[in-house]
Amino acid sequence: MFFASDNAGPVHPKIMERVLQANAQHAMPYGNDAIMEEVRAGIRRIFEAPQAAVYLVATGTAANALALASYCAPWQTIFCAETAHINEDECNAPEFYAGAAKLTVIPTEDRMTPDALRAAILPREPGNVHSAQRGPVSITQVSERGTVHALEELRALTAVAREFDLPVHLDGARFANALAALGCSPAEMTWKAGVDVVSFGSTKNGCMGVEAVIFFDPAKAWEFELRRKRGAHLFSKHRFLSAQMAGYLQDDLWLTLARQANDNAAHLAKGLQAAGAEFLHEPDANMIFARFPRNIHQSLHDAGAQYYLWNDLLEGDDPEAMLGARLVCDWSISRTQIDAFLSHFP
Amino acid sequence: MFFASDNAGPVHPKIMERVLQANAQHAMPYGNDAIMEEVRAGIRRIFEAPQAAVYLVATGTAANALALASYCAPWQTIFCAETAHINEDECNAPEFYAGAAKLTVIPTEDRMTPDALRAAILPREPGNVHSAQRGPVSITQVSERGTVHALEELRALTAVAREFDLPVHLDGARFANALAALGCSPAEMTWKAGVDVVSFGSTKNGCMGVEAVIFFDPAKAWEFELRRKRGAHLFSKHRFLSAQMAGYLQDDLWLTLARQANDNAAHLAKGLQAAGAEFLHEPDANMIFARFPRNIHQSLHDAGAQYYLWNDLLEGDDPEAMLGARLVCDWSISRTQIDAFLSHFP
Amino acid sequence: MFFASDNAGPVHPKIMERVLQANAQHAMPYGNDAIMEEVRAGIRRIFEAPQAAVYLVATGTAANALALASYCAPWQTIFCAETAHINEDECNAPEFYAGAAKLTVIPTEDRMTPDALRAAILPREPGNVHSAQRGPVSITQVSERGTVHALEELRALTAVAREFDLPVHLDGARFANALAALGCSPAEMTWKAGVDVVSFGSTKNGCMGVEAVIFFDPAKAWEFELRRKRGAHLFSKHRFLSAQMAGYLQDDLWLTLARQANDNAAHLAKGLQAAGAEFLHEPDANMIFARFPRNIHQSLHDAGAQYYLWNDLLEGDDPEAMLGARLVCDWSISRTQIDAFLSHFP
Amino acid sequence: MFFASDNAGPVHPKIMERVLQANAQHAMPYGNDAIMEEVRAGIRRIFEAPQAAVYLVATGTAANALALASYCAPWQTIFCAETAHINEDECNAPEFYAGAAKLTVIPTEDRMTPDALRAAILPREPGNVHSAQRGPVSITQVSERGTVHALEELRALTAVAREFDLPVHLDGARFANALAALGCSPAEMTWKAGVDVVSFGSTKNGCMGVEAVIFFDPAKAWEFELRRKRGAHLFSKHRFLSAQMAGYLQDDLWLTLARQANDNAAHLAKGLQAAGAEFLHEPDANMIFARFPRNIHQSLHDAGAQYYLWNDLLEGDDPEAMLGARLVCDWSISRTQIDAFLSHFP
Repeated sequence: MFFASDNAGPVHPKIMERVLQANAQHAMPYGNDAIMEEVRAGIRRIFEAPQAAVYLVATGTAANALALASYCAPWQTIFCAETAHINEDECNAPEFYAGAAKLTVIPTEDRMTPDALRAAILPREPGNVHSAQRGPVSITQVSERGTVHALEELRALTAVAREFDLPVHLDGARFANALAALGCSPAEMTWKAGVDVVSFGSTKNGCMGVEAVIFFDPAKAWEFELRRKRGAHLFSKHRFLSAQMAGYLQDDLWLTLARQANDNAAHLAKGLQAAGAEFLHEPDANMIFARFPRNIHQSLHDAGAQYYLWNDLLEGDDPEAMLGARLVCDWSISRTQIDAFLSHFP
Repeated sequence: MFFASDNAGPVHPKIMERVLQANAQHAMPYGNDAIMEEVRAGIRRIFEAPQAAVYLVATGTAANALALASYCAPWQTIFCAETAHINEDECNAPEFYAGAAKLTVIPTEDRMTPDALRAAILPREPGNVHSAQRGPVSITQVSERGTVHALEELRALTAVAREFDLPVHLDGARFANALAALGCSPAEMTWKAGVDVVSFGSTKNGCMGVEAVIFFDPAKAWEFELRRKRGAHLFSKHRFLSAQMAGYLQDDLWLTLARQANDNAAHLAKGLQAAGAEFLHEPDANMIFARFPRNIHQSLHDAGAQYYLWNDLLEGDDPEAMLGARLVCDWSISRTQIDAFLSHFP
Repeated sequence: MFFASDNAGPVHPKIMERVLQANAQHAMPYGNDAIMEEVRAGIRRIFEAPQAAVYLVATGTAANALALASYCAPWQTIFCAETAHINEDECNAPEFYAGAAKLTVIPTEDRMTPDALRAAILPREPGNVHSAQRGPVSITQVSERGTVHALEELRALTAVAREFDLPVHLDGARFANALAALGCSPAEMTWKAGVDVVSFGSTKNGCMGVEAVIFFDPAKAWEFELRRKRGAHLFSKHRFLSAQMAGYLQDDLWLTLARQANDNAAHLAKGLQAAGAEFLHEPDANMIFARFPRNIHQSLHDAGAQYYLWNDLLEGDDPEAMLGARLVCDWSISRTQIDAFLSHFP
Repeated sequence: MFFASDNAGPVHPKIMERVLQANAQHAMPYGNDAIMEEVRAGIRRIFEAPQAAVYLVATGTAANALALASYCAPWQTIFCAETAHINEDECNAPEFYAGAAKLTVIPTEDRMTPDALRAAILPREPGNVHSAQRGPVSITQVSERGTVHALEELRALTAVAREFDLPVHLDGARFANALAALGCSPAEMTWKAGVDVVSFGSTKNGCMGVEAVIFFDPAKAWEFELRRKRGAHLFSKHRFLSAQMAGYLQDDLWLTLARQANDNAAHLAKGLQAAGAEFLHEPDANMIFARFPRNIHQSLHDAGAQYYLWNDLLEGDDPEAMLGARLVCDWSISRTQIDAFLSHFP
């Protein structure tokens, strides 16, 4: 019963198979391997973006920090949700890579709203040398609270960015889960919606450790290569990153896995709801934030269930007190496990 | 009628006199001048801090950024008021000097409160490698909204910092104005209240361009000297910084000037109040945030008065609409000017 | 006939097997996996260093830059060979990670000498705030010219560092090859010789992409964890780094592979020597720098041999002109390939 | 008898007079003062560069570091003389401001040569992502060894830079002394010779603390303003920087003072030569590097003469041993002092 995170699950066998296949003879290092050609072509096709510059790195934080740095001068500020991974969970990596730029955080409940974004941008007036200058807007899709921006919501956010002539980054650590939830095309959720650069997450959805950075405007390509190397994120045996991504993309495995993860979460959410749990945020994809009584937490805990309590502590007196939980499903969680989890509810 | 800022006024004649006196023969460069000895001794005496390390730089931003960097690792976050100069008006200098550290801003009305500070610190849990680590707390005294933290308020803030074992920086760009307002001793407003390092502002209060950085614990001394040089803030003809500060400290000129500035502001505030203006914040020192009708703004504007409108625009239809103004008095503003300003009110 | 680099070869099957074994169920992320426990214990045992702090990253540049940053303040200078990877091949990553520190490069033929090191250190006098301050010494073993520092040479270099109280980093991208060449113990080549921190390379010697950073003094441990995360080098599915390293260490596979690579190079060198090639540097481990006539290069080139010309161009008129070559053997090169290569020599 | 440096002398009375004149009423802060208009126009006229962007900072290190950062990406390397101030005397400020860029130092005797420059540039091949990328060339005029590049030498250096499409910075901490030595126009020594940006030093030549940064291409203007503010080098009471520079430029005072300093040095050099001293470098401007016997040093030392021994120690046994000295003359040194100094020679 592992619901702690989707970053801790196994690698899908078909992805591992591609890794094994790649392990023959010598291959050109540093991204010049033949598999990378396949990956580049595949991503361009999937995103309907024949000019896109496509790069691989091994961690989501590297993807975000390098992508943002490509669009952020050191005297600018990135605009992001208060809850964003880049603000909460990357130990200042975005600031580091962007040369000591600032993050301006936007008060966020479920997900960033256009009004809140505009309110954060407005005070940083252009031409005022004393202020941090306006820089890129970073949107997280699936948000860190498990909600998914509808296409029109995404477009409304990027419209605000365009209003101020600011570039837009999409943190897609759970890109596939969002896409599966919306049922739209990758292009619709990115460049057609006004996104300039995407962190295309894969690790959480069945890979070993690989994320793509996709620039729809290839003008940033060479600078990105230098930034990646300078950040020590250029792999010599790059073919093993390529192989993971190739396996991930093949036969739409990435979508299959995301749908599986979302379905798992939906099944879990349905069971929780039936059992009277309260949701802190709408469970749109594969993450659930729910509250239920302490004694059920205790029972699950005793049975070895793994997940994070959400701003609450297990310790306490009142068995009926409602405590928050973050429950994440990856593709590999079985219905058996979910049902075992749900069996602790009355 | 210049009320735009206290950063634009003249240098007091006695300070200029010391600068002229310093201009004889050669003097040892880079802070090894004899006048700096006098300054160091003077500040140590005034602050009752015989061990303090004392340095001079030429700008307030340099003082703040270098002082904070001395207490902030690149993976930490500085806690400060949303309204703080380091957040709003230094174009990422603190982030730059602190090696790409983060600023966590605290929602602030009049001035930072202990509860809001604690609420900002708490989520950055120690031992969590993903989060920015807790770093120094920066308090602005006089605050950027013209209010002054009472001694017990200061102590309550530093108590929160101590609770989490965090160092405390005081941005004293208007240190003298705050001290004059509180009527306490420099030691009471700093190390006795739990402050570790002070930006002791002087430029706004009659100097040409000099600020002291005072470390009550001299352990940071040599590192600060390296940081100052690396930041290009070490002056060869340092004696001219020393001379300004020497003149500023002599015969308590600094306090005399601050009292003069505060008295000017009090006189102005009294007149505004009598005329029915509304105060946005309590005018504790030498800055006033007030609202009064558009037609009076227009009349002042036509007469050449200089000050910033506060989140409002002069243009508009309604002559009775209440518009905000920031009015700053320095020591050099005459009663005549203030009364001329007030004469535009009915 | 692939002699271009040891960074482009396959992963050893036993290492891949451990990766496959690791792919079961969920595992704690971010270095808290059980395999990392095994790795840590293994490295401590091999290095006879029960207190050592051991970390894994995926690239050699990350290992070097993070290790050096842990011992280098931004106002210091790293001392290294002119030929060092950190100077020539890391696109300013060491400067980036060390917060804009300087590299002072030491003129180097075969490898760094104590006299040249001392001559580089001496002018940066302590207490001079204008100069970059003295920082860590970085030694490359195997050097970038294929030579190996004898133990007494290593000790002579670290003795110079100690003379000035400077920490010592060992860039061991080819650690195993050096150890195999010297026939000493890991402890003898590191902490017993005065080394403080090691980049323990593995990728070039049969892994997919993993390097260990080993601190003999664990005082830097937590700071390193923060630096690694901030650099975006902390893997969520860390077990796959651990698994590679576990396979690499098991049954001394790492030494077996290094001996194989060195033997391959020795066989190649012997053949080259017999054929009249000239060596630019002594081929102590698995890299050969040799010169032989253009027409042989042409013949090899036509046959598809892959390697770098060394400061020379294939294009030219004189078939007898002696051109340099860098020839690197990894463990996977077969005798057949080497003999095929040598068959082009008269 | 003060020959230690030209950074420690008095401010010329006419410059101080302008500072005093500037001290009336309020003036617009942050470079928007009226005197800056005069300065900008004056520098544009003097340099025959009506489009030039002109900025003031207070230290030479700030001028150099900010000017170079404007032309150097973090993944590039600056090319400079081994002896350059930016390499030897700025405690990594250029690296800091350029976002952790590298300095590639060029072996230098008297001054940088085109061949040595080319040899340093060549190995950093474009398109190689592993290497630091080629960045700006920085030339020091007067060089740190007191020599002056002839115009054709300057042009030969900038021709090498242009060959590789690299921008050129001139560190003119002693710009006026060089100009006086060459007898050419400011335009001839800068943009007509292929220089893109100049640090126009003034502090060493009679000012209190002010240096101009002059961009002949104004495209960098706004970015420079942001860099200056972010570096904490933007003065609120900027008029006092402007006033110094205005006084310095008025009636060609800057050239008068430089000629005076050069004449002083020529007088001193002539006397030293007559007394049998050996010159380490040609004393082209206002700095002399000479060797003479220890007993004369001792005699001068006892008489209170101040200057730096050059790579030698006063302590020693042999009274006839030849020891090096660096002797710098500023405009304020009197003939009486020089003759008093020379009177210690036989």
